[in-house]
Amino acid sequence: MSALTTVSQQKHFEGKQIRIEHESEVLQCTMRFSVFLPPKASVEHPVPALYWLTGLTGTDENFSTKSGAQRVAAELGIALVIPDTSPRGDQVPNDQAYDLGQGASFYLNATLAPWDKHFRMFDYISAELPAFIERNFPVTNKRSISGHSMGGHGALMLAARLPERFVSVSAFAPIANPVNCPWGQKAFSAYLGEDQQSWKQYDSVELIKARGLSLPLLVDTGTADEFLHTQLNTEALIAVASGLPDARVRYQDGYDHSYYFVSTFMEEHLRFHAQFLLA
Amino acid sequence: MSALTTVSQQKHFEGKQIRIEHESEVLQCTMRFSVFLPPKASVEHPVPALYWLTGLTGTDENFSTKSGAQRVAAELGIALVIPDTSPRGDQVPNDQAYDLGQGASFYLNATLAPWDKHFRMFDYISAELPAFIERNFPVTNKRSISGHSMGGHGALMLAARLPERFVSVSAFAPIANPVNCPWGQKAFSAYLGEDQQSWKQYDSVELIKARGLSLPLLVDTGTADEFLHTQLNTEALIAVASGLPDARVRYQDGYDHSYYFVSTFMEEHLRFHAQFLLA
Repeated sequence: MSALTTVSQQKHFEGKQIRIEHESEVLQCTMRFSVFLPPKASVEHPVPALYWLTGLTGTDENFSTKSGAQRVAAELGIALVIPDTSPRGDQVPNDQAYDLGQGASFYLNATLAPWDKHFRMFDYISAELPAFIERNFPVTNKRSISGHSMGGHGALMLAARLPERFVSVSAFAPIANPVNCPWGQKAFSAYLGEDQQSWKQYDSVELIKARGLSLPLLVDTGTADEFLHTQLNTEALIAVASGLPDARVRYQDGYDHSYYFVSTFMEEHLRFHAQFLLA
Repeated sequence: MSALTTVSQQKHFEGKQIRIEHESEVLQCTMRFSVFLPPKASVEHPVPALYWLTGLTGTDENFSTKSGAQRVAAELGIALVIPDTSPRGDQVPNDQAYDLGQGASFYLNATLAPWDKHFRMFDYISAELPAFIERNFPVTNKRSISGHSMGGHGALMLAARLPERFVSVSAFAPIANPVNCPWGQKAFSAYLGEDQQSWKQYDSVELIKARGLSLPLLVDTGTADEFLHTQLNTEALIAVASGLPDARVRYQDGYDHSYYFVSTFMEEHLRFHAQFLLA
């Protein structure tokens, strides 16, 4: 039932960088994800975990190879859980565009054919994957969540929807208000249909406006981000975050949308989450 | 004469990650390389540089995106210069194999057709590129050199041949004795011909045996490196290094050949070079 194939395991900062393949019941396909276990993680001493959601076109490998997070996670004693960005495989629907279909799930549960059978990443990330992780690795159920771009949207949206599952949330250049940007409108139309009311359950700005956000929040976005003015709607996030008890939404001068930006501020985000994961 | 095109420039750890295209006279083709400038580098305050040579199949992007070196280089005030692994372009000879031709120069001056016209990476790395860098960027002529795998061979070989050009040398999993391994024998046969005497001028173990090495040396190789027993000849390097005044050749338990290994020990190598670059 929870069969697991180790695709690769590599020593990294005295810990273990592991790539796993498993059959997802929720997504009805074979999925890959990566886990970094810090050196102190053991069955006797399981560690809390930061879940990382990747942006459009990515896989578990972008963060694993480019973020530099493992150095700090190894020091702090935090596991990193890095899922893929969508269901995968020849039997899974796809689209020729980079911003729809495989690699572009937007971390929601699709309701429209042909997407509705496999594209249930909301359920996968919030329930099936954590259960699988906590059953098979020395990882506790104390979780934080972060992500980049589409993954920043996913992290904020999941934290706003399911605050009891996480202790803190952060994001890098999140698509904060997808109902009001081209990427979000295209994806939500395809996955959820034309009823824009149904879109709001997956929109971080709308969710925070309606429910608030009880979790500590840290967001960074670069002022030279090439998608800042067309896709990210950072100002709308700043507006709703201003009413929250523990939220910082910051601009970083001169930084763009790449992992050169993400890796620069990764250590600060990990130490932010560590305050709550290790408390 | 020294025309320069900026392909991209991205802020990274408060410094600049820059990708450049220029016409190489030595290689007779258009070349790309990357430079990282720490925040303190300026025309008034030029900084010393670590040159990094990449392994087989790589480009300047492997190190730029995966090594994590910029964080430490930014702190220390050291520039990083990251050339490509060979001449490039449709007019440059190539081979279907990954270990010959483009991406696989072995950092030597080829003497055999069809390689001899373009494959002059020894001259490019040792003379044309540093002159170009020091003319166009706020970088001094105080240089260290390091590299990975084929690039570790290149770093050791260049330092042994031209110790006056560098203040220190290090390597990760270097192909230390290419005349005695399949990768080296294949490449040296193709580029230099069957006279094995001519190979020795590009073989680190042979060079150190014949000339010694006056520069401080640090080498790390993982015990789980998949090429350790077939290609690297680490034991031969340990044997010749044992007679050197300031050399450490270390095994790192359980690490493989990947950038998960390289990035783990990158900070220590940068701090090693900084002792001499900043002295």
